[in-house]
Amino acid sequence: MPSYFTRPLSKLVGELEKLPGVGPKSAQRLAFHILRLTAEEVESLSQAILEAKEHVRACSICYNYSDQDTCEICRDARRDRSLLCVVADARDLVAFERTSEYKGLYHVLQGVISPMDGVGPEMLRIRELQKRIAEDGFQEIIVATNPTIEGDATAMYLAAILKPLGLKVSRIAHGMPVGGDLDYADQATLVQSLEWRREM
Amino acid sequence: MPSYFTRPLSKLVGELEKLPGVGPKSAQRLAFHILRLTAEEVESLSQAILEAKEHVRACSICYNYSDQDTCEICRDARRDRSLLCVVADARDLVAFERTSEYKGLYHVLQGVISPMDGVGPEMLRIRELQKRIAEDGFQEIIVATNPTIEGDATAMYLAAILKPLGLKVSRIAHGMPVGGDLDYADQATLVQSLEWRREM
Repeated sequence: MPSYFTRPLSKLVGELEKLPGVGPKSAQRLAFHILRLTAEEVESLSQAILEAKEHVRACSICYNYSDQDTCEICRDARRDRSLLCVVADARDLVAFERTSEYKGLYHVLQGVISPMDGVGPEMLRIRELQKRIAEDGFQEIIVATNPTIEGDATAMYLAAILKPLGLKVSRIAHGMPVGGDLDYADQATLVQSLEWRREM
Repeated sequence: MPSYFTRPLSKLVGELEKLPGVGPKSAQRLAFHILRLTAEEVESLSQAILEAKEHVRACSICYNYSDQDTCEICRDARRDRSLLCVVADARDLVAFERTSEYKGLYHVLQGVISPMDGVGPEMLRIRELQKRIAEDGFQEIIVATNPTIEGDATAMYLAAILKPLGLKVSRIAHGMPVGGDLDYADQATLVQSLEWRREM
């Protein structure tokens, strides 16, 4: 297929196709779009890619992305330092930040336990989590991994190692999404919404 | 929103969001993916973008994309030089090349006539098309612009200026797509499929 394009163009299409969610068709569309940009716009895009890779690293405390040794959240004196929310990925942290509701700190595991993918607990930032908990005196650890098999297994693993330390360990609720329709909800969600029910 | 990200990351998300078909959510997904690539992979992506912009230009004969003065198709001695297929965009040319059926040459208009967008015939490569036709002795001009209002208008404009030169000017067929379902086809397509009908 790349033979239909001139070489630098087929190389660009090939690079773009490697990106997640970008198929051959959208790679082609993106490449043609890039050719129509001004030289400055192309420079700016190419530069942003290089600079993000170069300057963004993991916060040395919570493993959120940061351009300094520690991230803005860890440095922010207004955050509630008694609460720690454990997420699998920095994306999940961003999702909580968007709500503007959570004021505690975070810990990014950088993955979930997944024997199928060969990811064991030792490959996640769990040792670092244990160290933080031992040193920083949190009152509650909220485990906010996804409600999936891997996310739930990771949550259970964390509860097993953290609860013996006498800490309150909680899990984000599983149930019906707000605005959802019972008629369209999957069985697993319905079962969870019963199991997690609360007296009104 | 960008404040949830560290600055180089929010800059990258911003750049990616400018791409067609990339919303805030996929820009974020792409950015996080890029951060997980190796330094070599990121370099290669960034380089492909710069090089495509730098080295790809329009073929001086047909306006297809090329990394040389003339494109591979125009240079290919095996192509049928009596047939000229006129397309709006280099992407459309690629679509025909994929079929491996068409062996003639192409002419890329670099757009279609669209008064709504302020694109008049003088902004397309129509003068260059007229010059090629005057010099190169084609037997047939196939107008392969999209079956849209703008594509059809452009086709009619081309027919009006080319037919007086005594040339055979044809239009790609409009009708039911192969594998399509009459029950789901839009009215305009059904009308066209009747109008373009052919004796069996």
